[in-house]
Amino acid sequence: MLVLMKPQATEEDVARVCRKIESMGYRAHPMPGATRTAVGITGNSGPLEPAEFETLPGVAEAIPVSKPYKLVSRELKAESSLVRVGSGSDGFTFGGQDLGIIAGPCAVENREQVFAVAERVRRAGARLFRGGAFKPRTSPYSFQGLGEEGLKLLAEVRREFGLLIVTETIDSENCDLVERYADVLQIGARNMQNFSLLKRAGRSRKPVLLKRGMSATLEEFLMAAEYVLSEGNYNVILCERGVRTFADHTRNTLDLAVIPAVKSLSHLPIIADPSHGTGRRDKVLPLARAAVAVGADGLIIEVHPDPDHARSDGYQSLHPDQFDELMREITAIAAILGRSTPCPFLDVAARN
Amino acid sequence: MLVLMKPQATEEDVARVCRKIESMGYRAHPMPGATRTAVGITGNSGPLEPAEFETLPGVAEAIPVSKPYKLVSRELKAESSLVRVGSGSDGFTFGGQDLGIIAGPCAVENREQVFAVAERVRRAGARLFRGGAFKPRTSPYSFQGLGEEGLKLLAEVRREFGLLIVTETIDSENCDLVERYADVLQIGARNMQNFSLLKRAGRSRKPVLLKRGMSATLEEFLMAAEYVLSEGNYNVILCERGVRTFADHTRNTLDLAVIPAVKSLSHLPIIADPSHGTGRRDKVLPLARAAVAVGADGLIIEVHPDPDHARSDGYQSLHPDQFDELMREITAIAAILGRSTPCPFLDVAARN
Amino acid sequence: MLVLMKPQATEEDVARVCRKIESMGYRAHPMPGATRTAVGITGNSGPLEPAEFETLPGVAEAIPVSKPYKLVSRELKAESSLVRVGSGSDGFTFGGQDLGIIAGPCAVENREQVFAVAERVRRAGARLFRGGAFKPRTSPYSFQGLGEEGLKLLAEVRREFGLLIVTETIDSENCDLVERYADVLQIGARNMQNFSLLKRAGRSRKPVLLKRGMSATLEEFLMAAEYVLSEGNYNVILCERGVRTFADHTRNTLDLAVIPAVKSLSHLPIIADPSHGTGRRDKVLPLARAAVAVGADGLIIEVHPDPDHARSDGYQSLHPDQFDELMREITAIAAILGRSTPCPFLDVAARN
Amino acid sequence: MLVLMKPQATEEDVARVCRKIESMGYRAHPMPGATRTAVGITGNSGPLEPAEFETLPGVAEAIPVSKPYKLVSRELKAESSLVRVGSGSDGFTFGGQDLGIIAGPCAVENREQVFAVAERVRRAGARLFRGGAFKPRTSPYSFQGLGEEGLKLLAEVRREFGLLIVTETIDSENCDLVERYADVLQIGARNMQNFSLLKRAGRSRKPVLLKRGMSATLEEFLMAAEYVLSEGNYNVILCERGVRTFADHTRNTLDLAVIPAVKSLSHLPIIADPSHGTGRRDKVLPLARAAVAVGADGLIIEVHPDPDHARSDGYQSLHPDQFDELMREITAIAAILGRSTPCPFLDVAARN
Repeated sequence: MLVLMKPQATEEDVARVCRKIESMGYRAHPMPGATRTAVGITGNSGPLEPAEFETLPGVAEAIPVSKPYKLVSRELKAESSLVRVGSGSDGFTFGGQDLGIIAGPCAVENREQVFAVAERVRRAGARLFRGGAFKPRTSPYSFQGLGEEGLKLLAEVRREFGLLIVTETIDSENCDLVERYADVLQIGARNMQNFSLLKRAGRSRKPVLLKRGMSATLEEFLMAAEYVLSEGNYNVILCERGVRTFADHTRNTLDLAVIPAVKSLSHLPIIADPSHGTGRRDKVLPLARAAVAVGADGLIIEVHPDPDHARSDGYQSLHPDQFDELMREITAIAAILGRSTPCPFLDVAARN
Repeated sequence: MLVLMKPQATEEDVARVCRKIESMGYRAHPMPGATRTAVGITGNSGPLEPAEFETLPGVAEAIPVSKPYKLVSRELKAESSLVRVGSGSDGFTFGGQDLGIIAGPCAVENREQVFAVAERVRRAGARLFRGGAFKPRTSPYSFQGLGEEGLKLLAEVRREFGLLIVTETIDSENCDLVERYADVLQIGARNMQNFSLLKRAGRSRKPVLLKRGMSATLEEFLMAAEYVLSEGNYNVILCERGVRTFADHTRNTLDLAVIPAVKSLSHLPIIADPSHGTGRRDKVLPLARAAVAVGADGLIIEVHPDPDHARSDGYQSLHPDQFDELMREITAIAAILGRSTPCPFLDVAARN
Repeated sequence: MLVLMKPQATEEDVARVCRKIESMGYRAHPMPGATRTAVGITGNSGPLEPAEFETLPGVAEAIPVSKPYKLVSRELKAESSLVRVGSGSDGFTFGGQDLGIIAGPCAVENREQVFAVAERVRRAGARLFRGGAFKPRTSPYSFQGLGEEGLKLLAEVRREFGLLIVTETIDSENCDLVERYADVLQIGARNMQNFSLLKRAGRSRKPVLLKRGMSATLEEFLMAAEYVLSEGNYNVILCERGVRTFADHTRNTLDLAVIPAVKSLSHLPIIADPSHGTGRRDKVLPLARAAVAVGADGLIIEVHPDPDHARSDGYQSLHPDQFDELMREITAIAAILGRSTPCPFLDVAARN
Repeated sequence: MLVLMKPQATEEDVARVCRKIESMGYRAHPMPGATRTAVGITGNSGPLEPAEFETLPGVAEAIPVSKPYKLVSRELKAESSLVRVGSGSDGFTFGGQDLGIIAGPCAVENREQVFAVAERVRRAGARLFRGGAFKPRTSPYSFQGLGEEGLKLLAEVRREFGLLIVTETIDSENCDLVERYADVLQIGARNMQNFSLLKRAGRSRKPVLLKRGMSATLEEFLMAAEYVLSEGNYNVILCERGVRTFADHTRNTLDLAVIPAVKSLSHLPIIADPSHGTGRRDKVLPLARAAVAVGADGLIIEVHPDPDHARSDGYQSLHPDQFDELMREITAIAAILGRSTPCPFLDVAARN
C-alpha cells in the first residue's frame, strides 16, 4: 500500500499517517518528493483497506501496490533519486547531471600500486576509487585480499588524492570493519541474494553499490535493493556487470537494456561495469561508450599500473593511458545526452 | 591454408597459385588487399604442405590456418571489407565512414503503409528500406506476408524514393524470386544455420544481410557467413539482433560486445538490430545509441506509420517522429567515433 | 476454435461441420477420438462466433482455443497419438507400450560400417536405424554426407536387416529425394523453425521426427509440430535433444522435464536423444536410463563400430557392446513404468 | 601437488610427509584410501618441486595437479566418499548402497504440520527430515521462517520420529545456532558462493549439504565444496537443484547430466532436488525417477500435509500420498542399479 499525500499536506499530516501505520504493526516509509510526499507501508502480509488512510487529513489517495517491490519503485517516488557519497567539496552525487566514475585496481596490492593508479585516475576525472581488500574468489587457494591492511591503504588514498573509497564487504560481520574505512559499501554479484548482508547494509549509514547477480532477473535485482531500503538505507546505487549466458566470446554478457529498464521502474541510479561485464581489456572501451550512450549514471572501471602482473583479474584491467582515452570518449558521448563528467582533458572539446 | 603473395607479385603469379590449388582438387579464393593479395584454399579435408606453394613465384608465405573459419577471417584479409549495395548515386557502401541505416516496417502490408514509412525514413536519412514480403512466423496461423505482391510494392518504393531494398528470403527456392526484387537478401535468425539457404545465397550476386541465430556462438555466426563466402559471394553484412537468455525484461538480450569481437576476428561489416534485440519500442532508442557507440557499421530499425495497428511486431516499431529523434542522436554519437550518417537534420549540429 | 461433436454424432454431422468451416474460407481438421470426434478450425485470423457451429446437428460445443497451438493439443485430442512407421511385420508404432529405439551411426560412411552397426543394433532390440546421408554441418569444409549414395546404403540396411530407416532431410527440395528412401523424415534442431521445410514435411505421407531447437521454448517446439500437422500430416514424433545453456560439462543440457511437460499439453509421442543431448560417450548410458525413467516413448542413440575413427561426432557414439548394456538397463527400467522394449537379452530378467 | 604414498607406507611415513609440508608453510591433507593414502597440499601459490617429496620414505609419487580443485577430486581420492550423518541406529550414510531420502516441508510452520509430515515420510522410508527455520526469500516482506522456534520443533521431530534433521543456515553467525539443532547444515543455492559461510561450515563438525548455484558451472560447484573441505570438513554432500535457462515450462532446468559428471571428477556423494529443480508438483515424480536412474545418491523432496495452504513454495510440494508413490517407484528403479532405499512398502516387489 502506498499513501499519497496532497501537495499542501503538512508535516503533521504525514506524521499522523505514519503513526497510524505503526499502530497497526506495520512500518511506515515517508519519501518526500518535489511536489508531494508519499508514504510506503511494508510489513503487511495481505492487502489493506484504502479507506483506513483516505479518511485522514492531507491524504490524497491510498493505492494498493501490485509489484513485489515498493520502496525502490517509481510508483512510490516519481523523481530520480540523488545518492550523495561523502561530504563537503570531495563529495559526489550519483543520479545527477555528472556521471559517477569509479576507477581503480581489482585488488589492493600495496601502497605503490594504489598510489600510482589513484594519481592517474584522479587526474583523468574519476572522483571515486575502487579496490578490493576482501576479495570473494572462486578458489580458496587464490589471493583473498590484504584485509584491514588494504582498507588502511584505501584510507590513505582518500587522504592523499581526495578520492571517495568504494570497496567490497563480504559478510555482515565484515561490514562493521569495512564501514569504518569505505565511503561506499560494495556488494558483489555473488552476494546479491545474501539477504543477511543486504539487511546489514540496510542498517548502515553509508551508501551501497549493489551489483546484479550473474543470473538475476530484473525483478530479483530490484528486490535485492528493496531489502536494503526496507531496513532504512535509501542510498543504493545499482550496477549492471554482465549476466551468464551461452555466449563465450566475453566472460559475461553485458545486458545494457537493463539500464533503461531499471530507469523506467525505479528511481534509483544505475551504473555499468564493463570490466567484469566483458572480462577482456580490449572490450572495455567500446562497452564503456555504449553504457554511457544507453543512459547509465556512471561507470566502474578496473585500472592497474601493470595489468599483466596484477594479482587478480589483470586481463580485464586498463592501462592508465587507456583509461585517459576512455574518459575522453565517454565525456563526449555524455554531452550528447545532456550530461557531463569531471574529465578535465582539454582536447575533448577539440575532438568534438 | 592461406597463401600470402608478395606485394610485388603479378596477376599472373596469383593466377598460377590458383591454378595449382585447383589442380589439386581444392578451391582457390583470391582476395586482393591494399598492399598485397592473399589466396585462401578451401575444400581440403586435412593439412596441406606449405612447401607446395612457397616455391611458386610471387609467394611470400603459406600459412596453415587453425581457426575453422578462413574466408571471413582478418588473418586472410586484414583490411575491413566494404560491401557495396546497389549502384550509381543511389548505391550505398557498408563498412565505410557512413553508417548504413535500414528502416521500414516489419511486414509489407499495403502501398499506403510502405509509402508513408518510406517518405519519412528517407527524409530522416535512411538509405535502405526494410520490409518483409515472406515472414517466418512462429505460428502457421499468423500473417505470413504478402508474397510477390509485397515484393512488387518494395520495387515501387525503390523507384519512388530511391531507397535500396532489404528483404528476407526464407528458403532456396524462394531465393530465385526475392533476388529479382531485392538489393540485399536478408537471412533471418531462425535460418542462420539453414545451410541450403546459405549456399544458395552464396551463389547469388546480391549482398547478404545475415542475422545471428538466437543461440549462436560467435564461431557459429562466423561459420554461417563462411558458408556464403565459400560459394563465392563475399558481400556479407552481419547483424547482431539479440540472443536468448533467462532475462525477461526484454524479448532478447542484445549482445553488443559481439560487435567489437567480430571486428577483431573478421573483415566483414556488422550492424545491430535494436528493434528485435529488445522487442520493446521504448528500448529501441537507447540501444540504438549504444550500438553506434560500441562501433556498429549501421542499424536496422522497424518503423511503422501506425505501430499499434501493425500486422506483426507493432509493439517494437517506432513512430516516424521517434525515428527522426533516433537519427539525430546517433548522428551526434557517430561523429565522436569519426563516422557520419546521411541524416540531414540541421538541429543536430545545433544540439552539439 | 474447436468444435466438439456429441458422442452420438453421425459421420454426416461431422462432414456438415467441415463443409461449413470450409465455406467460410477456413480449414477443417476432423480428429476422431475414442468416444467422440473433435474438429479443429485453422486459418481464421481472429476469433469466431461459437453460435455459428453450436446450432448445427451433432455439435456439443464450440470452444475458443486460447493456446497458439491447436492440432497438437490434448484439448483437441485427449488420447495419446500412436504414430505408425512402416507396415507389416517390420512396422513399428510410437506412443504405445513398446519404446521405440532408433540406433545407428551419426553419418553413413560405407556399406561395411552401416552393416556392422545394423547387425548389432538389430540384435540388441532396435527396430529403427538412424544414419545421416545429408549432414547439416557447422563448417562448409566438414564432411557433408554421402548424399543419395548414402540413402541407397540405408535402403540396403532395411532390406537386409528389417530395420526401419530414419534419416534427415535438410530442405524442401531435398525432401523429395529423402522421402523415397526413408521410413521417417528427420528434421534437425537447426531446422526446427525452417518453416518451408516444416510445411513440406507436412505434405509428406511419411512420419516426421522433429527435434527441438537448441533454444526453443516448449511453446515454439509445439508450434513447429503444429506447422506439420496444419498441412495434414498428423504423424509427428517429437524429440528432446538438449538445449543450449551456460553449463559446459556437456555439449548441451538435456532438458528431461520437457518430456512430462509435452505429455500433459500434447497427444504426440516424444523421445529423447542422449547422444546429442550430452555430446559425450560416457554420459549416454546414464541419461538414456533417466530419459526412460522420466517417461520418454523411445530413444535415438548413436552407435558406431569404431567411434574413434568416425567421420562425424564419434566422441558421442557408443561401441556396440555399450549399446547392448544400454538396452539391458533401459528394458529393466521400462518394465517398472509398465512399458517394454524389443530387447531380447535373457539376462535382463536374471539381473532383476 | 598430490603426494601418493606407497601401499606399504607406514603411519609414520605419512606423518613425516605432513610435517615436511607444514614446515614449508603449506597445509597437508592426508586422505586414507582402501589401498593407500594420498596427501594433498594446499596453500602454495605456485608449482612445487616433486623431488622435494619423492625422496621421502614411503612416497610413491608426487603429482602436480592442474585442476583448480584438489581435495574434492578423484585424483586425490579414488574411492567414493561415505558421508556419515548422525550416529547409532538412527544414523545414515550417504554414498553407500542405500539412497539417502530427505523429505519434509519447505518451511517449518507449526508442530502440527511438521509432525504430520514427519510421521508420513518416516513411514514411507525417509531417514532424514528437511524443513526451513531460516528462509532466504526473494522479498523482504515474505515469511522468513520461525527462527529458533522452528529449530526446536525440528529437534522434537528428531526425538519423536528418529529422523535426522537437515536445515538451512544462512550466514556464518546464524551457523552457531543452527549447528546446535541440525544433523546436516544445508547451504542454499543463493549462498553457494558465500565464501564466508562456506568457510564457517568448513569449521563445523556437522556434514554439509551444498546446493548448486543457479548459474554455477561444474567447476564453480566443485570449488565451492573445496572451500568447505579446505577448512577441514570433508563431509560434504552435493545437490543438483536446477539451473537457470531460457526454458519457461519449469521454474529451473534440472541438469541431470551433472550427476555422472560429478561422479567422474569427485569422490563426494551427490543427490538431486526435483522439487526446486522443477518448481511444479506434477513434475516431481517423473524427475525423481530420472534422478535415481541417472545415478544420484539420494533425493531431497518437499512434502506438505496441505500443500495448497503452505506458507512457501506449496505449488511444488507433494501430498504425502504422492510421496508414497514416489518411494515405491524409485525403490524399484534403484534395484536395477544395484541400490536400495529404506522404503518398506511390500507392494514394490509385487509390482516388479
